[in-house]
Formats: sequence, structure tokens, C-alpha cells
Amino acid sequence: MFCGICHSDLHSIKNEWQNAIYPIIPGHEIAGVVTEVGKNVTKFKAGDKVGVGCMVNSCQSCENCNQGFENNCPGIIFTYNSVDRDGTVTYGGYSSMVVVHERFVVRFPEAMPLDKGAPLLCAGITVYSPMKYHGLNVPGMHVGVLGLGGLGHVAVKFGKAFGMKVTVISSSPGKKQEAIERLGADAFVLSKNAKEMQAALGTMDGIINTVSANIPVAPLLGLLKPNGKMILVGLPEKPIEIPPFALVSRNKTLAGSCIGGMADTQEMIDMAAKHGVTADIEVIGADYVNAAMERLAKADVRYRFVIDIGNTLGDCAAAVSE
Amino acid sequence: MFCGICHSDLHSIKNEWQNAIYPIIPGHEIAGVVTEVGKNVTKFKAGDKVGVGCMVNSCQSCENCNQGFENNCPGIIFTYNSVDRDGTVTYGGYSSMVVVHERFVVRFPEAMPLDKGAPLLCAGITVYSPMKYHGLNVPGMHVGVLGLGGLGHVAVKFGKAFGMKVTVISSSPGKKQEAIERLGADAFVLSKNAKEMQAALGTMDGIINTVSANIPVAPLLGLLKPNGKMILVGLPEKPIEIPPFALVSRNKTLAGSCIGGMADTQEMIDMAAKHGVTADIEVIGADYVNAAMERLAKADVRYRFVIDIGNTLGDCAAAVSE
Repeated sequence: MFCGICHSDLHSIKNEWQNAIYPIIPGHEIAGVVTEVGKNVTKFKAGDKVGVGCMVNSCQSCENCNQGFENNCPGIIFTYNSVDRDGTVTYGGYSSMVVVHERFVVRFPEAMPLDKGAPLLCAGITVYSPMKYHGLNVPGMHVGVLGLGGLGHVAVKFGKAFGMKVTVISSSPGKKQEAIERLGADAFVLSKNAKEMQAALGTMDGIINTVSANIPVAPLLGLLKPNGKMILVGLPEKPIEIPPFALVSRNKTLAGSCIGGMADTQEMIDMAAKHGVTADIEVIGADYVNAAMERLAKADVRYRFVIDIGNTLGDCAAAVSE
Repeated sequence: MFCGICHSDLHSIKNEWQNAIYPIIPGHEIAGVVTEVGKNVTKFKAGDKVGVGCMVNSCQSCENCNQGFENNCPGIIFTYNSVDRDGTVTYGGYSSMVVVHERFVVRFPEAMPLDKGAPLLCAGITVYSPMKYHGLNVPGMHVGVLGLGGLGHVAVKFGKAFGMKVTVISSSPGKKQEAIERLGADAFVLSKNAKEMQAALGTMDGIINTVSANIPVAPLLGLLKPNGKMILVGLPEKPIEIPPFALVSRNKTLAGSCIGGMADTQEMIDMAAKHGVTADIEVIGADYVNAAMERLAKADVRYRFVIDIGNTLGDCAAAVSE
């Protein structure tokens, strides 16, 4: 079993640990092989390659769930640090096994490696879902990716897989070569360079904003074409300030997006396998998790740590419940 | 000829007058009868009932214009206080006649009165266009209308014409009876009443935000269902503060919208005629304009002043140029 280390794991450990009633076992980018299935399970059997993302349950009966948006269900149960409907606490993927209802398990296509595929279960669906629902998946369109980290580097790859022109926007000049040569982006805009920003004005159909820092958003909205859309997938701490004219004058949109539903997650992983989209990762052993957290806090990873639990934590497996 | 008095006329007179090189003749909600057409005009003839809204020209050749979004053209020429492509200054509808290129003229259906229809050319298209493009025109959907003024009262009527449930959201308790009994809204939420706000949480597919004052937007985003959309059509002076979580957590959208293209304006006025949607107006003479501006600044009108120019300013007509 493999488990990616997401920024929100770090956030949970830093901010929620002290008030938690139960120990927090983080991890919601889990990929492994099924060892056992419950008697009512029909989708999976032992030996299947599967993945589990950010949620392990929902009410399964509301309008959101029925439409495939379990991520919007008011009764959503997160993969860790939630109390499930049966009263048990959920524990994440930094562990030797997980037991999950089949609705919240996705099948890994043969071509999708477990380690490089694991981060797609959060980072991948987080960028794929808004690209799909906001129409930023059309060949020939021009999409900007703001911020080149765990989410951003996957957004670049999906953009290219959709046949789009992809421009990385970043405040770090060092990311230019990385973006273009390693990740295959078509262009790079240094956000603190006025000339480059000016040249990119009004050129993008959409921007996937993966930045969690509080940066001025209005100048970046200027990069959008009329009817353009900026999608927020990061969570800056302070409110974002939007001059109304920046949205109104050219019919622009600022939309938030949070992971995605289960059917979309399966669709995402299938498409990723077909187009060779995976996360760039650094595989670590379970004994390296603390050091990895420290490096993650300094953004010192390209682009996701993935824990090889199977080889470093003993008995490892994924089971699927009824 | 009739001409509505829009808030932006008041704004122009208050704020732009002193720096204007040319006199400002406001007015962009113009309805009248064609007196004469240029030799290349094919869409109209003398005697036709027509209307002119916020723009009288654009480049007519860019991607925006070709897609019918003249309102997004970088070369848009506004109906007044702009310099047209031939170097002439544009003067609006507070005048005895206007001459406008046929592309920027809409045909008034027989059933649409000139006086009550005039305000639709700005207020109507401003709310109709985002309802169309953001999918807030589906029978059975629930739309909130924030603010009950010139734009808001028309939004309520279009919402009902689309077959939607319409809830007016306002900080004025006095608007409740008005909204429900006069305008046909289905419900009313007093935004400063915590209980009413709580009861309305997560119930609306969209909100048309017509408010130009700086009010806290985050609590209002809470009224949206998952995937819900708030459309800004007002222009508050200061930036709007958006806590990212308020958009991200349930995939919500904040979009701006500015009038609409010419084909959509024609479609809007045709639909309005079919469903009996008109503006509620107070018809005034040309000699009352100054008093009307003072009353408008105090929101003392239900809901639009319309100048009856034909009967009060002498020779009045609309001509259509090639």
C-alpha cells in the first residue's frame, strides 16, 4: 500500500492534533491491492488494484449523492479524523490497512502505477473536476496554472492531456525551466514581472489557482479573456479581495472547487492512465514521515511524498467493505 | 421617444461631468420609432418600434463581436460620453433623436410598450444575460434576487417568466409585501434577520446580486446550494471580501456580468414581450429630470424614471444609420 502526503495532512497535524479526541492517523491518497471483500461487495475482489481518496462515506441518499457529488453531501465522512455514521473514528492511509465501502473505492487501471497514482486521488481530482465542470477541458483552449506544487504540476499534465495550451504562472523565476522542460507547459509567466503580466493580459480562458498564500488576485483576473474563469482550489487563510469591476467588466468568474465525486474520480484516474498522467513523487519509508513533513512545510519536494507503506510498515493491504 | 434614467446616468453626471471635454448627454435605455434609415439599412424601416441600449458601436470584427458578445469587445463604444470610431462624441437618449448603426438597434415586438420596455435595454439585459449563461433559467430552480431596485425588480419578473421559484433578499423589511404582492416573488428573506437567513441556508441555485453597496457577501453565499452561483451585476465601490472556504467548500461560484450582446438583447426583449415582463416605471417630462435625479439618489422611485421625450422635448425620433 502507498499513501501520498498532502498539505492538508500537515495542516491537520499542526492545527488539529491538540484538540483531537482521538489520535489522528492522516492520509487520503491511498493506493493498494484488495486483500478481502465483504459479502455484499460486487465491484471488487481480492487482488484488484484500487485507490481511496479524501472521503470514505456520505449519506448516499441526498440530492448531491444521487447526482454523483458525494463531495458536496452534508453528511460527508472524510478519510481521517471524522466520526463515521456508525460512531467509529476514521483513520487514514498512514497505516497498514484501511477498510472502505466500495462506493468510495476507485479501480486503478492496469497502466496506473500505485505509487505515482496515489496522489491523483486528492491532487488529481481536485484539478480535474473543475476543469470538467467549468469547461476548461477543450482542445485548443488556453489555461493558466497558478502555482507549481502538488496540485499545480498535475493541473499542467491534465491541461496537456486535454489538448490545451498551458501557461504556468508563478512568482518564482526558478520554476520556468521546470514548468516547460520537465512538465511540458507551453509558456511561463513570472507574476512579479510587469512586462510579462502585461503581455499575457486577456489571453487565458481559465486559470486553476492552486495557491494557498494570500496574494492579490485582481491582477491575475486580468489575464483572463472575457467570460474567463478562475478556479480556486487552494485555501488562503485570509479573505480574498475582489474589486467588483474585475469580475463584472468582462463577465469573469471566480469559482471554488473541492475535490470531486466518486464517478468523476474514477473517470479522472481512467483518463490519467490513458494519457500517462501521474504525479511526480519522492517515495519514502514510513520512518521518514516526520522529516518529510518538515520538508513539505518548506515546499522542499517535487511534488509529492508518497509513503511506501507495504515495504516499510509490515503487513499492508486494503480491504473493501460491503 | 422614451429614455429610462439609470443609476449610471446619475453616476456620470456626479462624477464625470467636471472632467468631461464635451457636454454629457446621458441616457442608454432608449425606445422610439424609426423616422429614417440609411441606404444600406436592411433590418429596419421608418415606423418600426425599436430600442437602443448601452452601446452604439464596437469593432464588429473581433472574436467577441463574432460570437455575439459585443459587450466584451475592447472597442466597445458606449451610448454616451464615448468617442466613436469616426471621432465623434456619442450623446445619449436625453435628446430629441439618436442615430445608431442597425447592429446596435433591437426591434420592439408589437406587445412591448415603448415606455415600460425602455428600461429593459439596460436593466433587463443585465439580469437576463447571466441568468441565461449561468443556467439560472431552468423551470423549478430556485433563484434569489438580492436588492429590489431597478435591476432587482426586473430580475424577479424574469425569474418568474422562466418558471423558477424566486426569493427576494433584502435588508429592508418594507420590501416584503412589495416583493410578494406586487412583483409576484414566492418568498422573502430579511438579510438582517438571523433566523430567516438560517432557514434559507443552502436552498438557492443562484443569486442575482444587484446591490451596489458594500455589504458582507460571505453570509449570502451561504444561501446557495452546492454548485450554486452568485452573479454580481452591481458595482460596489470597495473590493468584496471573499473567504476562500465560502466558495471552495461546496463548489460555489461568484461571477460578474455586464449587460449582454445584441442578439441576446433581442432575445431578451422578445421573451419579455411574450411573458409580459416590463419595468415598473414613473413617466416624467423632460423638465423633471433634475428632480428625478435627486429622488433617484435617495432610491425614491419604483423602479425607474422614464422620460417621455416625445411629448415634452419637441421633435423626437430615432433614426437608424447604415
